[in-house]
This record gives sequence, C-alpha cells and structure tokens, in this order.
Amino acid sequence: MINLFKLKAKHIEVATGGIPVITLHNEFAKENDIRGMDRVKISFKNKFVVASVDVSNKVITKEEVGIFDDVWKILKVSKGEIVEITPIGKPESTKYIRKKMDREELSKEEIDTIVCDIVYDRLTDVEMASFVAASYIIGLSLEETENLTRAIVNTGDTLNMKKKVVADKHCIGGVPGNRTTMIIVPILASLGVTIPKTSSRSITSPAGTADTMEVFSEVSFSIDEIKKIVKKTNGCIVWGGAVNFASADDKLVRVRHPLSLDPEGLMLASVMAKKVAASSNHVIFDLPIGYEAKLQSLGEARHMEREFQRLASRFDIKTKTTITDGNQPIGKGIGPNLEARDILWVFQKDERAPMDLRKKGTILAGKLLELCGVAKSGDGQKIADKQIENGKAYEKFKEIIKAQKGNPDIQPEDLELGEYTCNYEAEKTGKISNVNNLAISKIAKSCGCPTDKEAGMYIYKNYGDSVNEGEKIFTIYSRSERKIQRAIEIMKRMDVIQIE
Amino acid sequence: MINLFKLKAKHIEVATGGIPVITLHNEFAKENDIRGMDRVKISFKNKFVVASVDVSNKVITKEEVGIFDDVWKILKVSKGEIVEITPIGKPESTKYIRKKMDREELSKEEIDTIVCDIVYDRLTDVEMASFVAASYIIGLSLEETENLTRAIVNTGDTLNMKKKVVADKHCIGGVPGNRTTMIIVPILASLGVTIPKTSSRSITSPAGTADTMEVFSEVSFSIDEIKKIVKKTNGCIVWGGAVNFASADDKLVRVRHPLSLDPEGLMLASVMAKKVAASSNHVIFDLPIGYEAKLQSLGEARHMEREFQRLASRFDIKTKTTITDGNQPIGKGIGPNLEARDILWVFQKDERAPMDLRKKGTILAGKLLELCGVAKSGDGQKIADKQIENGKAYEKFKEIIKAQKGNPDIQPEDLELGEYTCNYEAEKTGKISNVNNLAISKIAKSCGCPTDKEAGMYIYKNYGDSVNEGEKIFTIYSRSERKIQRAIEIMKRMDVIQIE
Repeated sequence: MINLFKLKAKHIEVATGGIPVITLHNEFAKENDIRGMDRVKISFKNKFVVASVDVSNKVITKEEVGIFDDVWKILKVSKGEIVEITPIGKPESTKYIRKKMDREELSKEEIDTIVCDIVYDRLTDVEMASFVAASYIIGLSLEETENLTRAIVNTGDTLNMKKKVVADKHCIGGVPGNRTTMIIVPILASLGVTIPKTSSRSITSPAGTADTMEVFSEVSFSIDEIKKIVKKTNGCIVWGGAVNFASADDKLVRVRHPLSLDPEGLMLASVMAKKVAASSNHVIFDLPIGYEAKLQSLGEARHMEREFQRLASRFDIKTKTTITDGNQPIGKGIGPNLEARDILWVFQKDERAPMDLRKKGTILAGKLLELCGVAKSGDGQKIADKQIENGKAYEKFKEIIKAQKGNPDIQPEDLELGEYTCNYEAEKTGKISNVNNLAISKIAKSCGCPTDKEAGMYIYKNYGDSVNEGEKIFTIYSRSERKIQRAIEIMKRMDVIQIE
Repeated sequence: MINLFKLKAKHIEVATGGIPVITLHNEFAKENDIRGMDRVKISFKNKFVVASVDVSNKVITKEEVGIFDDVWKILKVSKGEIVEITPIGKPESTKYIRKKMDREELSKEEIDTIVCDIVYDRLTDVEMASFVAASYIIGLSLEETENLTRAIVNTGDTLNMKKKVVADKHCIGGVPGNRTTMIIVPILASLGVTIPKTSSRSITSPAGTADTMEVFSEVSFSIDEIKKIVKKTNGCIVWGGAVNFASADDKLVRVRHPLSLDPEGLMLASVMAKKVAASSNHVIFDLPIGYEAKLQSLGEARHMEREFQRLASRFDIKTKTTITDGNQPIGKGIGPNLEARDILWVFQKDERAPMDLRKKGTILAGKLLELCGVAKSGDGQKIADKQIENGKAYEKFKEIIKAQKGNPDIQPEDLELGEYTCNYEAEKTGKISNVNNLAISKIAKSCGCPTDKEAGMYIYKNYGDSVNEGEKIFTIYSRSERKIQRAIEIMKRMDVIQIE
C-alpha cells in the first residue's frame, strides 16, 4: 500500500544542483507525516524523479508542490498540471552513515552504497556532511579507505593504460609556484616512460598546474583524447576536472569547505583513486613541510608517507616519497603566465631560469626514474638533468603542447603580464627570515589569479637572501587597477616578508 | 580594505527559512574566490543582510545576484536595481564547531557563541549538522551540557514564576496514549502546587499532550497569558511550541531528523532548558522502557536517570525518576478525541475509565507531591487518588480549561469519532504476548492523527489479556475512507498484536 498525493505543479526558477528538491507546504507535510529532507517520488506522465523535500509555508499553497528548475525540466510538466507525490524511504546509505557515526566499521558493500548514492546525487548536504564529520572525527580504517578508493574508482572514469610501467607524481599542495609537474612529465616522457598526468586547477592557490599549462595549450580532454595524446607523446599535462576520476570526492568537496574539513581517509582515498583511475603504478609523492603548507611538521609528513605507502600497496602501486621544504615559493613567478615563463626559461636554459624549480623538478624526476627502473639508484637526477641540458625535455614538452592543440613555439616574451604593477621593497637592510606563503597567495589572487593569466607576482629575493633597504623583493602584476589596489592594501596589511 | 561588488538584483521567489541565502553565478564566484556557504553582506540603500552563498550557473548571469524571498523583502529592492555584495568571514562559531570536532572541550563563551549563531540563523545546515555530528560522536561533558542549557535558556523566553516550589513532569516519550500530564497537572494544582506545564505536539506519535488538550481548549498562549492562567489556577497545559523556551534546540531539530540523531548532550540540555525556562524546580521524570520506546533497557534508563540528576543539580532542580513499563499503550484511546475521552472518564470516575492511565497518573502525581514536600514519603499516591475520588481534580481541570478559553462542560459523548471504522479481531484464542507500539502509532496516524481530532483507535484488550478467536482487540476510526483504507493495509501488513 502506497501513499499517493496529487498536487498542482508550481515552477520555482532555481536550479539546486546536487540532490533534486521539491517544496511542500508545511501544513500538507505535517498532515501527511512528511518532514524536511524526507524523500518522495514525484511523477508526471511516464517520468519520475526522486527528490528531497523542503518544507515551506511561503510561495506555495497546500494544494501545490514547488518544483525546482532541474526537476521541472526532467518531468516536462506545465504550470498547474497535476503531479503525483509518493513518500519513499531514505536511501540505504543513510543507515550506513549512521552506522559509521556509531563507530562501527563499514563493509565494502556499505561503502559502495554510500559512494554510489553520493555520485548519483541521492544524499542531502546534511547527510553528506554527517559522513564527512564521522570520517573526520572517527577516521577510516585501512580497509575502509581501500574500499572507499575502489568505490570511487568504480563510479568514475578510468584510463586503462595497460602498461607495466605508468608513472605519476602527486604533491600535497600548499606551496605557491611549485610547477614541478611541468618539468617532470617532459623529462620522463622524453625517456620513454608513460606518464599520463592529470592536474588540478587552483582551489585556494593562485594557480594550479592545469591553469598554468593552459597558457600553452588546451587542458580539457576526454578519456579517449588523453589516450591518443599519451600514445603519441608518452605523456600529457591535462586538467583532471575534465575527466571524472573521482566524482564522489568532487561531490563531497562542497560540504567539506565550510569547516575546512579534510578527513585523512577521504583525502587518501581521493588521491589514490585518481592514481588507480589513471592506471598509474609507479608514483612519487612530494610532501612539502611548511608553516603555511598542508603538512606542518616532519612527524605529519612521515605519517602521511606511511599512510600513502600502506594504501598504495593494496593496489600494487610502487611509491616513493620525498619530503621537501614548503616554507617558501618554488620558482620566481606566481600566477599562470609568470609560472609558464619560468618553465620555458628552465627548458631553454635561460640565465633567468629559477634554479630552485629546476633542481626540485629534476630531483623528483630522478627519483621517479629510479622507481620506474629507468635509472639506477643514485643516477636519477643526473639523467633527468641531462634531458634538460640536451634539450630533449624541451622537445618533448613542445610535442605535448602540440598534441594538446597548443602552440609549441610560444616564447617567454610572448607571455603578457598585467600592465598595472607595484614593487614590494625591503623596509630595511638585512636577511629575509620569513616568507609568508599565505600572504603571497592572497596577494597574487587579489591581482586576478588564476582567471587573469597575466596576473601574479615575480619574486627577486627569497628566504635567506640578503637585501638592502629599498631593494625590490617582488613585483606584482594585474590588468585591473581596482584589483592591484586591493592587492596593495593586502601587502600593506599583512606581514609578507620578514627581514632580520 | 574591503572587497565590494555591485550586482543586479534578481528576485528568486522561494523563501529558504533558516539562514538567508543569495545565489551568485559560479564564474563570478570563482573569479572572486567566493565559494558555496561562504558569507557575504548584501546591502541596498540603508539596509543589509548577511547571507550564505549558493553558487549556480543557472537562472542568473554573471552580472546578477539571485535574492531569495526573505532577503528580498528585508532589502526592499526592485528587479534590476544594483545591490552591493561584500564577502565577510564565517561566523565565529564555525571555529568552535571545528574545535569540538577536534575533540577539544568548549568553553562557556564558545558554546554561547554557537547557540547564539544558531538562534539568529547565522549557520548553514552543513555547519549545524557538523555540530550535531560532533555532539553525537564525541559527546558533551557535563560542563558543556550545563553551559549549553544555560545558553539555550538565555536565548529563549522564560516564565520567571519566582516561586519556591514550581512542579513539572517530563516523559522520555515513545509510548502511545500515555496522557498522564493531563491527570497530574489538575491533581497538583488542586492541592495548591504551581505547575505551569508546557507540552509538545506530536512529532512521530499519533498525538502529543498539546494535541489532546486542544480538544478541550486553546493551547497556544504567550508568556504573559500563561502567567495569568497559572496565577488563576496554579497550573496550565499549553503547547510549548507557542513559547520559545528552547529556540536553539528547535532549530537543530531539522538537521537531526535525516539521520534520526538524538545526541544525548543536546537532548539533556533541551529538556533541562525547558524546565529552567519554566522556572520549574521540582521535576519528576518518567522513563518508560520498552522495545519500541526511546529507552530500551533498564541500563539505559538508569544511565538517563543519573544524567538528568547530575545536570538538574547544577540548576538547583530537585528531581525524582520513575522507570515505567513502555511496552504497551497507556489508556485505551489513541488519538486526540479518544485520549480526551479517557481523561474525562478518569476524572468522572466512569466505569469505562482506563485504570492503567489513572494508576500511572496518580503514581507520578504522588511522587511529585512527595518531591514538592506536599505529601509525606509513601502517602503521595493516596493523596493524589483522593483528589480524583473527591472530584477536586476534575474541578481544577475544568478551571484550567476555562482559563485556557475552552469549554469546561464538554462531555465524553460530545467527542466525535471518525465515521469510518474497522475492527481488529483476534486471529486465534490465546493470550496477547506482544503489542507493537510502532504499528499502533503508524495505524493511528494513517487514520488521520493528530490533525483529525476524530481519528485514532480504541483498544479493548492489552498485553497479557486472554482473548478468544474473533474477539475485538481494537477499533480504528477515521473520517476519511481513503485514510482508513490505508490504515487497514498497514494493519494487514504489520505484526500488530501477537497471541500465544
């Protein structure tokens, strides 16, 4: 026996995103024992949608159901037509979320159900937030993390490279600049190693690798296009967001943001799922430690290293970890065009090339070569550096740009910078004793990064350098006067550089 | 330096309830580093609202801001006019919610801030759900619970009775019928004890005390009106929802519902806050244990008893607890009119009066009289029962009805029952070995409870009674043929009564 109600359709011109939502009048809901976030099946002719209930005493009457734009379009209903509403149970996964909150270990099937319901937008924000909270407070066991990883992979796209050696690199972010991926991929690919690299766009940083690569070429490709590019060049540097390697994880990001929750189990599963989906089996992890980086101590980094290794072993992925200094930006440019210029200068062996970026890139590339069995232990960096010296890495980079529909002949001087500039000068003579990465990011973003490719900053002096009073430490660039004014205000307000 | 954006107002005709919401276009949000659930100040002329951001690529353009109905009305803006948007920080309390998730104890000030932000609709569902999750998983210490109680009281209405003895009663629900409050209040009040009782309406049960009292009189009164009623009659039986004793708790109910989370600390604080707000200082707790009741074992009940006592002592509230049998309905009627009839029969000493209700009512009243120092230990129930025998409780009940603008002369036969009825008959001869309270509730609600006062069921035979095959066990009533059909279906499907 099923409860079935007939109500008049009223269009609400808002698209909710996430789970479909309908609005019922609160008296109607009360009388029929329906409460906010309960689920109903709403049907019209031969179409139906399962939606979460919103209860309101405004905008609709007791005889009406408010239908948001996404559901309206699926049902193809017209104003005032009669639709059918049937209350149904909550999705299975809400039980398992509750179970996790009760500190019980979840089985593979239960995690599969949760992930599936997340991917198909069957859960409300409150339910997803509860899962995130439980994962954060209680944590996930290795088994749960492994099963979560598999569930994410199974509900997302995969690359299926079918190669014995597929290399990859992952950095636990938080360091501006740091475009080592764009050094590493061409080096590895130039030595015949398959390295289908997907990168993120900026989330909180001035630019992600995908934003900077976009200066040279397109970065949004389908799975099939990526395969073709990699087949042709051994590598790629594309935007992970254009493929759905970890769609479940993407859906959780929204509810993690308000309290900046980054539950370790979810993070590990998200990273590993992307590696598995890319069919990577040799992965180097870059773990920068720094006051404003994600990892703030050696202890944290060692812990993370262990967790990555334990999880990777469940997927037959060989890993190596490097713990690096995350206390200052890597490279001299911050922002898409400025970072892209650094990359070109490195490959072109220009005297303006930032040596820290070249060094970090070749160290990581070297270790990855060793991990892949292409270089003997201890020889990696030398071999990697040779690929820059002999121009082969640059050649490969240009090949990749071309395969990604870009212009391989682009030169550093072609990369425009914002016309509005301002210098940050040393307020006294001394040694730079601190660089505030958070402030650097904030200033670069205020200049317009990452949307404005021409925005950002160029750093002349870094941590440990001696400076004279009035000497330029960095220059900021923006194409908007309003934006540079805002950046200048932040520069004045925050302690960006400390000199002792 | 403040970021300030000017956008065109677009009206979205939905009232969100809870925190005000505005919608920004996702490209605009991305460029300006604003994310979903971030907070902005939206200003128009001399008015402003702090709202949570919803990000969408539909319905609005990059130059527009979508303004939901509640905000639209406050700002008094017209379509297309320019409003100002300024991103601001998240409310302070989000930090403390995060702190609680990190297992740190919250201070009085931190809890005050959280409660204040909840009451004034400054938190999103996700943030509130995270607080509920943390309270559920980690729990609240006695200090935290005490501070939470005080914060709820301080942000709600209070009665300020200023009496040395103010009596009250609280039942941890889950038992259908069980209208002991309506027996206890007149008895206590008839003996000169002040007992300003606020009760709830049904949430998941067929009827709450307020729903049943509404059969006799009005139940929604302001604080001042309640004071006048109590001054005149010593007691009242009113709906707690009409006063805001625990407005913070009411706001959390929505986000607790989807996963049926009832964190102990929040529950204790909510109950105690209502007692403190009513200025009650002598409270009897009824803790029914039963398979479908909230408390399922003696251990749970003992634990709850201890927690109530510990918390009450912080507020100089004297408590007594009775652990009762919650395995079957109390009284014979279920549903507002049927329960009201039981009450009248008890007061009128009618032979049809359900003795279990009278007995439980007088036991609780007796213990409360003892707690208040009105009866000597062991004499309470006798004194309470005498007030029924000598008609004084009924007289008092009629006084209260009159003070609450009702008809004191209402008789059992005036209480109409639904015209559609159906009997549930014993399928075999034997003894009733189980009564499924959950099924009883479901059937009564399907008949139309609590909205239809005439709906419900009348129970002839109860747990332990012997029945012959075909004998009536209960009759259901509804004024809607459709509803009674639904109830009959549930009756057939569920194991309502077991006979052995």
